[in-house]
Amino acid sequence: MQQYFVKGLATSPITIEDKETSKHMFQVMRLKEDDKVTLVFDDGIKRLARVVNVEACQFELVEELADNVELPVQVTIASGFPKGDKLEFITQKVTELGASQIWAFPADWSVAKWDGKKLGKKVEKLEKIALGAAEQSKRNLVPSITLFEKKVDFLAQFDQFDRIVVAYEESAKEGEAAALIQSLTGLEAGGQLLFIFGPEGGLSPTEIESFAAKGAVLAGLGPRILRAETAPLFALSAVSVVTELMN
Amino acid sequence: MQQYFVKGLATSPITIEDKETSKHMFQVMRLKEDDKVTLVFDDGIKRLARVVNVEACQFELVEELADNVELPVQVTIASGFPKGDKLEFITQKVTELGASQIWAFPADWSVAKWDGKKLGKKVEKLEKIALGAAEQSKRNLVPSITLFEKKVDFLAQFDQFDRIVVAYEESAKEGEAAALIQSLTGLEAGGQLLFIFGPEGGLSPTEIESFAAKGAVLAGLGPRILRAETAPLFALSAVSVVTELMN
Repeated sequence: MQQYFVKGLATSPITIEDKETSKHMFQVMRLKEDDKVTLVFDDGIKRLARVVNVEACQFELVEELADNVELPVQVTIASGFPKGDKLEFITQKVTELGASQIWAFPADWSVAKWDGKKLGKKVEKLEKIALGAAEQSKRNLVPSITLFEKKVDFLAQFDQFDRIVVAYEESAKEGEAAALIQSLTGLEAGGQLLFIFGPEGGLSPTEIESFAAKGAVLAGLGPRILRAETAPLFALSAVSVVTELMN
Repeated sequence: MQQYFVKGLATSPITIEDKETSKHMFQVMRLKEDDKVTLVFDDGIKRLARVVNVEACQFELVEELADNVELPVQVTIASGFPKGDKLEFITQKVTELGASQIWAFPADWSVAKWDGKKLGKKVEKLEKIALGAAEQSKRNLVPSITLFEKKVDFLAQFDQFDRIVVAYEESAKEGEAAALIQSLTGLEAGGQLLFIFGPEGGLSPTEIESFAAKGAVLAGLGPRILRAETAPLFALSAVSVVTELMN
């Protein structure tokens, strides 16, 4: 069944105010009276809803659905600004794979240099991508997007996390295999996990040092060298395997 | 260090016959006498090699490197023909993630209809993508590509596998979580694993039945709905987690 996110709290009847959402509902999907969709409000609960008035874009809420597909832990993905539109790709894929927050920061070796204006536009674009991917993958929430203009502002966020893991190629080269799994084991439900990824050129030694000084664990993602945009997908899949499929 | 695959067996000195490889070595990377690269021959062993003659594209083999990054099990990814250039995307990413073979077949609900001529061109294109991705991710082998024109020819291959897993959305919806992990557990080193994925519209009930009749296990890939091109990435990451990182 088609799913839509609706801002605000659940009320019945509910009028869809967002133009893009109502356009998709009634022009693309051509919903008619009595047709049903899933609506997800800010509380993350999926609700079955029935069209009561097409012209007014109005639905009546039928019932709450028990379906919750969120990862048991909250995962924030933070990438050094990658080239081109790789952040768009990362946003779509990590939304499918269950990320709660999608962050990016200007890494020492980022080729992409984005100023405040560019970042504002990029956030808007990424928010749309995350919304679409969250609807398609039937998430209970849409990941939030934050692009930091300065690395110091990114570092200032570290205290809110229970664990911080840096994907570090050199760890993989040295044959280290256990750190990733260890850092995913024994996390309590609702635990806050931050994964940090470098841009194409990797993270600088200074960055590695400053992340480690704040308690980050360096972890390899297996022995093969993954591209900057592939590593976050591997990490989130690993979180799912350890916290959902093996539990 | 830059890595290149060279067809044939290791001999020293070795002359690089492949035009694209020698062009990349001496025009793009501008290798000079005494510069070193990693060469990988058909035996999958990485060897340090030194340029001895730029004009003749000739190297001398210096030593074997112990570095082996292949998954302990052989994973074949088989996708129902997906739309557009998604197979190109899948090929690049599953090569990074360690696939041994990349297959595709005409699924009942494939929108893409590719005839023999189109398939021939597609194979050539995918082989180049796999080669590039295998070099970049420092694989010991380049995954082979097979696109089946008829599904019956795909089904005829099943006997060579130790385990066959079908990624099946409905299993995930029913809350099944253990089948994937079970099918990855206790596989012997070198074991042959086949993963089957549907196209965008999924696999038909007839297909599910015919795969199951040949011993395939139906397994969900976590509770979120993954796109056709994302599911193989999740599956290979799971193989790495279970067979490499947890062992």
